[in-house]
Amino acid sequence: MPAQRIIALDAMGGDHGPEVVIPGADIALVRHPQLEFRFFGDEAAVQPVLQRYPKLAARSQIVHTTVVVKSDEKPSQALRRGRGSSMWLALEAVQKGEADIAVSAGNTGALMAMAKLVLRPIADIERPAIAALWPTVTSECVVLDVGANIGASARQLCDYALMGAAMARALYHIEKPTVGLLNVGVEEIKGVDEVRQAHAWLKETKDLPIDYRGFIEGDQIGQGVVDVVVVEGFAGNIALKTAEGTARQIAQYIRAAMKRSLLSKIGALLARGGFSVLKEKMDPRRANGGTFLGLNGIAIKSHGGTDALGFASAIDLGYDMADSGLLTRLTADLVSFHGKLDAAVGK
Amino acid sequence: MPAQRIIALDAMGGDHGPEVVIPGADIALVRHPQLEFRFFGDEAAVQPVLQRYPKLAARSQIVHTTVVVKSDEKPSQALRRGRGSSMWLALEAVQKGEADIAVSAGNTGALMAMAKLVLRPIADIERPAIAALWPTVTSECVVLDVGANIGASARQLCDYALMGAAMARALYHIEKPTVGLLNVGVEEIKGVDEVRQAHAWLKETKDLPIDYRGFIEGDQIGQGVVDVVVVEGFAGNIALKTAEGTARQIAQYIRAAMKRSLLSKIGALLARGGFSVLKEKMDPRRANGGTFLGLNGIAIKSHGGTDALGFASAIDLGYDMADSGLLTRLTADLVSFHGKLDAAVGK
Repeated sequence: MPAQRIIALDAMGGDHGPEVVIPGADIALVRHPQLEFRFFGDEAAVQPVLQRYPKLAARSQIVHTTVVVKSDEKPSQALRRGRGSSMWLALEAVQKGEADIAVSAGNTGALMAMAKLVLRPIADIERPAIAALWPTVTSECVVLDVGANIGASARQLCDYALMGAAMARALYHIEKPTVGLLNVGVEEIKGVDEVRQAHAWLKETKDLPIDYRGFIEGDQIGQGVVDVVVVEGFAGNIALKTAEGTARQIAQYIRAAMKRSLLSKIGALLARGGFSVLKEKMDPRRANGGTFLGLNGIAIKSHGGTDALGFASAIDLGYDMADSGLLTRLTADLVSFHGKLDAAVGK
Repeated sequence: MPAQRIIALDAMGGDHGPEVVIPGADIALVRHPQLEFRFFGDEAAVQPVLQRYPKLAARSQIVHTTVVVKSDEKPSQALRRGRGSSMWLALEAVQKGEADIAVSAGNTGALMAMAKLVLRPIADIERPAIAALWPTVTSECVVLDVGANIGASARQLCDYALMGAAMARALYHIEKPTVGLLNVGVEEIKGVDEVRQAHAWLKETKDLPIDYRGFIEGDQIGQGVVDVVVVEGFAGNIALKTAEGTARQIAQYIRAAMKRSLLSKIGALLARGGFSVLKEKMDPRRANGGTFLGLNGIAIKSHGGTDALGFASAIDLGYDMADSGLLTRLTADLVSFHGKLDAAVGK
């Protein structure tokens, strides 16, 4: 029997608040009927929506708060003002062991700052990262960091490798996930000392719980050459957004191309089965949710503008991670790696 | 009457050498019948191919050399060994005023290093950049730096803005191109001081020959929100490769989706007019060629694996740039900007 899990949800986060969060939870409940939910937010806004979903309501509690983190609030502001907010309380439920995972579609910067403060980094991780699921031609891969931090030291890049591997292990059930380090192809240009040092450490350190495959380039991510792609957060965020933008751009091309003649329109109609498969493949909702990795607890960031199906994917992602015992294993892996690294660099 | 232009071509560069370079030049000659060509390379390899194109042969000279820069050669090696190579001589022809532009499909790092040494940076540019043409839903834009350098100071990012604007002006005939600075969306995270400082300077400096629009994110590049996108070379290279990879990935999805049922196959057949428009839109050969900007001369890098049509696009690009008097104008713009900047920072 699948384990009982309690999901803490920031009911007020995202562009649509309870109107997306609650239907999203209802979809997740159909997939995993043993789940229970805690909705953190304004009871007056949450209760009327929840009533429309009686099965979900029967397995839910509302924890009332009127404090809400705004989408344009700076992380520092949110930390000052937002203790007791729906976002904060959802994270706190995980920290107290009252919930297994927290999901919010709210302000990313604020969620990151609060998650760091409430859940605390594991082992001696210096910086948690945000991991994204990236669709590939074969299936999908984990890419991190996609924007928690700008820049990363060699040691942090190695930490990302282990953190991403823990996530890939949880989601894809591979004991030693393959890992690639994102780099540029031109040789002998200066400035990527951190990337080169991380490469050396990942290659040389013995008995790492990963299958390190060396450098990869941006065009290889979508080909599914590795399970985990490691990159510092500025380039990682730009890569993710660029891929999303390119997919949207091509979808626009396709729509325009299929409307240009009567024959194309008829053809597109006949091929609509094929197009719906394509649409599903390119559906950003399937891979909704960035995961904060490196914290003592699982916190998932859903896209702010997603719909119920997308929000349900974010819950699913957290569920799979909680179910795998990821945190215990990752903590042990990081402690072991840092021990080896400190020995190697003569600390 | 269009101006007479002489094109210096590294006949030995790229995966296919003269077999692509010469047919590529032949296509360019059809488009611009007033062009003349200098092919630098091994006469024994070049002559037999050139003979197959009598019209082109009548407007071409071969400059013989057996020295060739290898595709896996490091830039430092190429500089030591490669003076007198087909790549070097093509660049030298531009430097001596014997040709208007040089095009090579050879080793990027070597070409960059040689171009810097032979053509020299203009004004007090610290670092030349590589600019790429990026297809957008409306038309295309210029993105730089896509990999000449890793990292960039605030001043260098501003230089890139002016350099990209000069290129956009030449290609799109817009007097004040719109410019965006690529950044990540999360606020108040540390480390992008250079980007923020460049943003301030571009916003505050009076009478710049650009229409500065502020920060943009990766997903906006393909939407054509600006004519010029500025980013340091590591993230820029990753963004470019990621977009190329995503386009290839989606093309694979489309092919698979259209083969999944008989109805889809028939539909795809009827819609083949639409698909061919789509294919053309997504054709990487249309935007072939990275341009080295910031040098006293125009040097174009074609993709190493491109075909004749792609190589012809790279020649076209160089032709348009040479035709616009870009270098004189850019030099003046840079000198003026540096003067204002030095005054502003109290130098």
